[in-house]
Amino acid sequence: MSRDVYRDPLVSRYTSRRMQELFSENTRFRGWRDCWIALAEAERELGLTHLISEQAIAEMREHRDDINYERAEAKERELRHDVMAHVYAFGEQAPSAAGIIHLGATSQFVVCNTDLMLHRTALDYVHADLLHAIENLAAAAEQFKDVPVLGATHFQVAQPTTMGKRLCLALQDLMMDLDAIEWVMGQIKARGAKGTTGTQASFVTLFNGDADKVRALDARVSEKLGFEASFPVTGQTYPRKLDTKIAETLAGIGASASWLGTNIRLLSGLKELDEPFGRHQVGSSAMAYKRNPMRSERMCSLARKLMNLPVDFHATHANQWLERTLDDSAIRRMDIPQAYLLTDAVLGLLIDITSGLVLNRAIVNKRLAEELPFLATEEILMAAVEKGASRQVAHEAIRDHSVAAAHSVKELGQTNDLLERLAGDDRIPLSASELSAIAQTPERFIGLAAIQVDDYLQQVVRPHLDARRQHMVTRDEASRVNV
Amino acid sequence: MSRDVYRDPLVSRYTSRRMQELFSENTRFRGWRDCWIALAEAERELGLTHLISEQAIAEMREHRDDINYERAEAKERELRHDVMAHVYAFGEQAPSAAGIIHLGATSQFVVCNTDLMLHRTALDYVHADLLHAIENLAAAAEQFKDVPVLGATHFQVAQPTTMGKRLCLALQDLMMDLDAIEWVMGQIKARGAKGTTGTQASFVTLFNGDADKVRALDARVSEKLGFEASFPVTGQTYPRKLDTKIAETLAGIGASASWLGTNIRLLSGLKELDEPFGRHQVGSSAMAYKRNPMRSERMCSLARKLMNLPVDFHATHANQWLERTLDDSAIRRMDIPQAYLLTDAVLGLLIDITSGLVLNRAIVNKRLAEELPFLATEEILMAAVEKGASRQVAHEAIRDHSVAAAHSVKELGQTNDLLERLAGDDRIPLSASELSAIAQTPERFIGLAAIQVDDYLQQVVRPHLDARRQHMVTRDEASRVNV
Amino acid sequence: MSRDVYRDPLVSRYTSRRMQELFSENTRFRGWRDCWIALAEAERELGLTHLISEQAIAEMREHRDDINYERAEAKERELRHDVMAHVYAFGEQAPSAAGIIHLGATSQFVVCNTDLMLHRTALDYVHADLLHAIENLAAAAEQFKDVPVLGATHFQVAQPTTMGKRLCLALQDLMMDLDAIEWVMGQIKARGAKGTTGTQASFVTLFNGDADKVRALDARVSEKLGFEASFPVTGQTYPRKLDTKIAETLAGIGASASWLGTNIRLLSGLKELDEPFGRHQVGSSAMAYKRNPMRSERMCSLARKLMNLPVDFHATHANQWLERTLDDSAIRRMDIPQAYLLTDAVLGLLIDITSGLVLNRAIVNKRLAEELPFLATEEILMAAVEKGASRQVAHEAIRDHSVAAAHSVKELGQTNDLLERLAGDDRIPLSASELSAIAQTPERFIGLAAIQVDDYLQQVVRPHLDARRQHMVTRDEASRVNV
Amino acid sequence: MSRDVYRDPLVSRYTSRRMQELFSENTRFRGWRDCWIALAEAERELGLTHLISEQAIAEMREHRDDINYERAEAKERELRHDVMAHVYAFGEQAPSAAGIIHLGATSQFVVCNTDLMLHRTALDYVHADLLHAIENLAAAAEQFKDVPVLGATHFQVAQPTTMGKRLCLALQDLMMDLDAIEWVMGQIKARGAKGTTGTQASFVTLFNGDADKVRALDARVSEKLGFEASFPVTGQTYPRKLDTKIAETLAGIGASASWLGTNIRLLSGLKELDEPFGRHQVGSSAMAYKRNPMRSERMCSLARKLMNLPVDFHATHANQWLERTLDDSAIRRMDIPQAYLLTDAVLGLLIDITSGLVLNRAIVNKRLAEELPFLATEEILMAAVEKGASRQVAHEAIRDHSVAAAHSVKELGQTNDLLERLAGDDRIPLSASELSAIAQTPERFIGLAAIQVDDYLQQVVRPHLDARRQHMVTRDEASRVNV
Repeated sequence: MSRDVYRDPLVSRYTSRRMQELFSENTRFRGWRDCWIALAEAERELGLTHLISEQAIAEMREHRDDINYERAEAKERELRHDVMAHVYAFGEQAPSAAGIIHLGATSQFVVCNTDLMLHRTALDYVHADLLHAIENLAAAAEQFKDVPVLGATHFQVAQPTTMGKRLCLALQDLMMDLDAIEWVMGQIKARGAKGTTGTQASFVTLFNGDADKVRALDARVSEKLGFEASFPVTGQTYPRKLDTKIAETLAGIGASASWLGTNIRLLSGLKELDEPFGRHQVGSSAMAYKRNPMRSERMCSLARKLMNLPVDFHATHANQWLERTLDDSAIRRMDIPQAYLLTDAVLGLLIDITSGLVLNRAIVNKRLAEELPFLATEEILMAAVEKGASRQVAHEAIRDHSVAAAHSVKELGQTNDLLERLAGDDRIPLSASELSAIAQTPERFIGLAAIQVDDYLQQVVRPHLDARRQHMVTRDEASRVNV
Repeated sequence: MSRDVYRDPLVSRYTSRRMQELFSENTRFRGWRDCWIALAEAERELGLTHLISEQAIAEMREHRDDINYERAEAKERELRHDVMAHVYAFGEQAPSAAGIIHLGATSQFVVCNTDLMLHRTALDYVHADLLHAIENLAAAAEQFKDVPVLGATHFQVAQPTTMGKRLCLALQDLMMDLDAIEWVMGQIKARGAKGTTGTQASFVTLFNGDADKVRALDARVSEKLGFEASFPVTGQTYPRKLDTKIAETLAGIGASASWLGTNIRLLSGLKELDEPFGRHQVGSSAMAYKRNPMRSERMCSLARKLMNLPVDFHATHANQWLERTLDDSAIRRMDIPQAYLLTDAVLGLLIDITSGLVLNRAIVNKRLAEELPFLATEEILMAAVEKGASRQVAHEAIRDHSVAAAHSVKELGQTNDLLERLAGDDRIPLSASELSAIAQTPERFIGLAAIQVDDYLQQVVRPHLDARRQHMVTRDEASRVNV
Repeated sequence: MSRDVYRDPLVSRYTSRRMQELFSENTRFRGWRDCWIALAEAERELGLTHLISEQAIAEMREHRDDINYERAEAKERELRHDVMAHVYAFGEQAPSAAGIIHLGATSQFVVCNTDLMLHRTALDYVHADLLHAIENLAAAAEQFKDVPVLGATHFQVAQPTTMGKRLCLALQDLMMDLDAIEWVMGQIKARGAKGTTGTQASFVTLFNGDADKVRALDARVSEKLGFEASFPVTGQTYPRKLDTKIAETLAGIGASASWLGTNIRLLSGLKELDEPFGRHQVGSSAMAYKRNPMRSERMCSLARKLMNLPVDFHATHANQWLERTLDDSAIRRMDIPQAYLLTDAVLGLLIDITSGLVLNRAIVNKRLAEELPFLATEEILMAAVEKGASRQVAHEAIRDHSVAAAHSVKELGQTNDLLERLAGDDRIPLSASELSAIAQTPERFIGLAAIQVDDYLQQVVRPHLDARRQHMVTRDEASRVNV
Repeated sequence: MSRDVYRDPLVSRYTSRRMQELFSENTRFRGWRDCWIALAEAERELGLTHLISEQAIAEMREHRDDINYERAEAKERELRHDVMAHVYAFGEQAPSAAGIIHLGATSQFVVCNTDLMLHRTALDYVHADLLHAIENLAAAAEQFKDVPVLGATHFQVAQPTTMGKRLCLALQDLMMDLDAIEWVMGQIKARGAKGTTGTQASFVTLFNGDADKVRALDARVSEKLGFEASFPVTGQTYPRKLDTKIAETLAGIGASASWLGTNIRLLSGLKELDEPFGRHQVGSSAMAYKRNPMRSERMCSLARKLMNLPVDFHATHANQWLERTLDDSAIRRMDIPQAYLLTDAVLGLLIDITSGLVLNRAIVNKRLAEELPFLATEEILMAAVEKGASRQVAHEAIRDHSVAAAHSVKELGQTNDLLERLAGDDRIPLSASELSAIAQTPERFIGLAAIQVDDYLQQVVRPHLDARRQHMVTRDEASRVNV
């Protein structure tokens, strides 16, 4: 850990070990070796036994993990070509394979296929985290499903809803992200064995023009690397559009998290809702009673960067020239890890925040009591008319008192006295307790909110989660990287 | 058409009539009326016959199309509320419905549901156009599947491929876009009848607390408006994430088009490929022989704006506060039509460009003849060794002559004389004709390119197109807007 | 006004007439004619009297304004070249000039120089509006300079500030925008008379190789069009970086407006601050007492789009190939007017909002009274110690009561009883009135806030405004377009 | 150097040591200590001698550099507050100062002021690099100022220009960046000593209400930290708009570099221009003669990310709530270093690439010879008419032969035989040598290109550089970080 030079805070501060490891050199170069082993195996299986011995493959397998970086780097200084340097270094460890490592392949054979394996594993991590966040949020929605809270439109008081239903808005966003991520996971294919401009020409030469063997090689290598299929056509690289689609999906998670985080911060400012307390909770301030929603702020901060990343990806894709230009290289080296690390950080926070949201019911109820009378005027009017009042007279009385009560609240800083006013006005044939029964009973105003939560959780969310139980590996369980 | 004020060139220059009409006031306000009719019908069917008469519904249906804008606008000046103004104006035309139009609903009932209907139709248009572009490109890929062309990496000469295979790279991108658009079409649901904060409270009141009827209302209205389902939960509006997902999908089409357009422009600069000639073809310049790829340039230009739009959508989504804030309004009024109009323009150009790409085979072959000798040195070496040359001696000879020939080309501006040089060198036991047979036979260097095209078209593209034949309504056929 | 097709809401809803007119066809094509007149004049002045007659110039001047669009459009359908079509049509009106309009020039001579004139005028409008917004905000800062309000960090209660000082944060942002806009106005130069690839070759031919005359032509045309200088070098067009720099400056105004609008919306939700009431104020809701900050919401909405536009401009600049590619065309036709129209809309709202911000002092004071005791504990501790209490004992007492009072507020929904608690505790030798004198006197907590406002207004803002008084033309005064 | 976790390639691959060091922990925490020392000094100078001893300050100064990280980190684990932890750790090293470090300040006192010092130094680095890039490019423009090359519009052949003039387009862009960077450097002020919500309240308390001393403290601290002034007003932090303005300026450098890099790549594909050869030059491919413009590709790649970063900054600024929210924190920790590191990488490449551009004159001339006859038809026509040909007849002849020659080139792949054709046609009274004198003399077609270069370099670029000679510290000279 060097204090002398810049360190990416994504790594030093915000992300899980498993995601940091996934985008390490070790993981990457082991991925390259997996590609070379798969290639040699497949080539041998398809008949190149005269070139590739069992021994060669055995030696390669033996040294898959213990990468001789010093040798590779020395060679790279000479050749200025990282793939060739690693071929050479691997050959030193596996001398029987020295001449046949990378046989017929071009650099992007290892680079692209490894990138795709990293995508695959990284998406597995994201998928599992997303499921956990959904599960947490579903539990919170369940917990608060029938707790009335003031609604808000324009960030102004509006018809009550329930806190559980409100959380379902975030839940539904995450469910759409889940659908999106599963779609994009289904788009991943191997780059396979395609050669420098994608024509497989070098492999055609290698197999003396036997097209079937060349096709089989592509399929077999892909299968050995764990892919169900390879892209039917490629240039030198796999289609950059795939990167964009993945980045968009991750950005979508950022937007969902940002929506929730922003709203937690607003509700926290109104004192209605707090992030979970506990070990994390040390305010940035000397004022101990403050519950600064710092994790939500951080989540919004990280999510903002995540949401803007797809612009890069589109531009990288759209500007690729012909079979390939290398202006995709440096930016992808940064953008792809950043997208996943940001997602990892965002989801880590999201899982944490949703694990114990604190609803301050006293505050919630106080605000409801203060505001409901204004929201209940329609119901009061109906009740008054039912008890014999003239609609027009009652409407006028309610309007006058509403204006006066609003004035009292906003201009004089006093409490809302609308109900007292109405109870004391003969034009409204309702007693104080009758009025209170209407206007201080929030449950009357929440419509089907609680039922919607039940329906949504039971019919959609829970079945989805149950069907994916086996994918819900936790971060701790997944402490070992396994590309 | 006013020349006094700014006119959006998307409308005045670049887009199809049908897409312009879709985002017109007429289409929008008819959509609102459809929503009101569906609501009244469903409310009546579910028992509110004492409030809503057959006559009321009949009058509404009768005036669905002839919107009395003057009345609506006069009322809007008074109320400063467009939905209420249109309720009022509609009521003037359908007096029996005057009191019950919009019964129990909030503004976003018509606004959101209509937006969703516009999305649905607009995506149908985009989908059909995309299928046509794919079909055109598939035909071009077929046509040029076995025509060797120089490959290019780093925009430098690389191993040959075929023009058809190269076009398949764009085709594969568009196929991924197709998959994405079909995914997002499947995400569209109605906003239904949800009320001001999404709790359906007003409808609960209307149906005296009968939750089943309220749920049925939501479902029935959605069905009448042509949706298979409604969103299980909403705030005041449908989830803004849906807009983002759509925008991303459209942006993806922009990136694919931009990739192809950029590469056509590059190949056109090399004189290998031209846009279709004909009625469009008047250069921007006095030089008649120039084939300025102006449609590709325009396509790239429009696509650039399209690709950057999702940033807006993410920010709009992420910044929505609680049940809703109105900072989504003005920007969505611009961003959604712009996204579709840009896509419409891009796809119009793409269909046009891909309908008759001109490959200048003489130029292609000339460049191949010039460059192939350099690319064939490996094959020449193998042939020389086969004919008895020492590998080391031959390798040295080839390297020396290659350097000299490259010098002659680049430093002296002469033609490539590598084959002549090699033919004249005793170290290489190959005659001029033998050398030519190797190094002037591009077909030897294209690997499985043609086979890949065949496989891809037959196994993937054609079956996909065939299964969607009924959706391939052309722009001309679809000249009537039908939300 | 067509209801059949999409209309850009920027024009139909949000912007000033003068900005709409500036980006109209009329203004653009009159700009072209100004360029042609300036060119002919300069060419004649520099000696081409045999080619260009006084009569030719007189006829051109006479028809500068009455553009014969029908003729131009008929010709454009034939030629598919708008500049040539307008040359032809202008020649019909000015027959003596028919052969010499556009003499030696390329299309971008009129297109670029006119674009630059539009930039110049549009920036003048923006500059004037910005000055008005600054003046309004300075007045509001002055008005509220010494009104204490609760501060907020993390959107949680923090040390008080004054409303005037808070508004100065927005003011300072706008002052930086002002500086930026004046910088970029200073970057504008004419494109001048440079020819198709910027070499002035056609003019060298025209003036028989007289370089001095060619340079003089460039300078003279630029001067006639009102520019102090022309770009020393150009490709076919002026540098696209200038567009980016302008777009960034406008985007900066968007960010400043968005900051203020967001914070007005937050304070409005806390009921502390409202947008100006009056003619505009009709809520989106039936609840009359709501003060929905709809103009701030709209301002944020428009500003969001404005802030994201520079991405387009950078990409357009960075992707220009060699002397020019036309992928800048369609996107600039949209992006430049959009950037200005969005800015115009944002500044219109900003001027309106800042013209009469309503501070609800009763609410402000109520919140201060509720929260100040917590914020005053440090001061209370010091006062207690001064009156003889043990620091440690007093600290403990205050801490205990703070926790209890916070509990009472947040867990029980009661009012803050900290001062009562402290007054009743012997460990704190302060009376209720002494405690109140400390903890209910917000002025004690605002530091130099009021003085900072005074200093800032007097030393920076006012002198800046005074020095620019002559530029503060209002929108109404500027109702006539004058490129 | 860990291979176990992700390492930011900006640091491990692309940037200069000095910029990496600038954004290191060491530099940052030393900056904090500088702030604390300046604060203590100023407080003492302004009268707080009873609190702050000479000894305290001496001890602080002594330990400015040897940061006791272990102590700080141990404390941070306890307090979960990095600034307080470093105050504590510093106090351990400077026991006489233990109670007065950070006296009256809030965390952002050190964080913001240090950020501003980092900006200042980083911009100095960027400024110096930019001047070097400009100097290199000016030299290249001088070198190639009168070398004719084919111009290109639409990436199609256009009127010739000179390579030097073309390079001046990039040069002019960089000069505008230079102007912008100097503008933004002038915008940097200290955050000064402002307190938690910017009111300086804590300092007012500290100085017993003496406003002049509080103002003096702010000024004096700022001066000690090397700033000419402090921001007149701040919230908790300095205005986030400053970050945006800086990011935009850096992004502008990215766009300029990207423009040049893209065009080098195009010209390299046409074989006209190469990046400097030499130590770097090892292609990504086995084909030794390829001159892959890999540094330009990398520069474009890095610049793309740089250009898109300002979107983040605008959003961070626009979304700050009231006196501050912490959603600016994590993203600024990444975005600010990334912006500078990307700029550093881009400028490093730009300086390298512009230090030895290789023009392949043989290729350039060959392409000119091939294309000039088409471009010279106007001149040929004039010469023919001068020698007595009928304009109409000659025009017809030229047109016919042009079409035929273009056909021969493009359809038949043959060389351009237009001049031979014209020489052999009686309608054109010009000999082969006369025709060649016109159409094979590129100098005739370059207008004032060379003169423009001279004028621009002498009148603008050189004086600018000369006036900034003292700022042109090289990367090597600046190897020691000096905030």
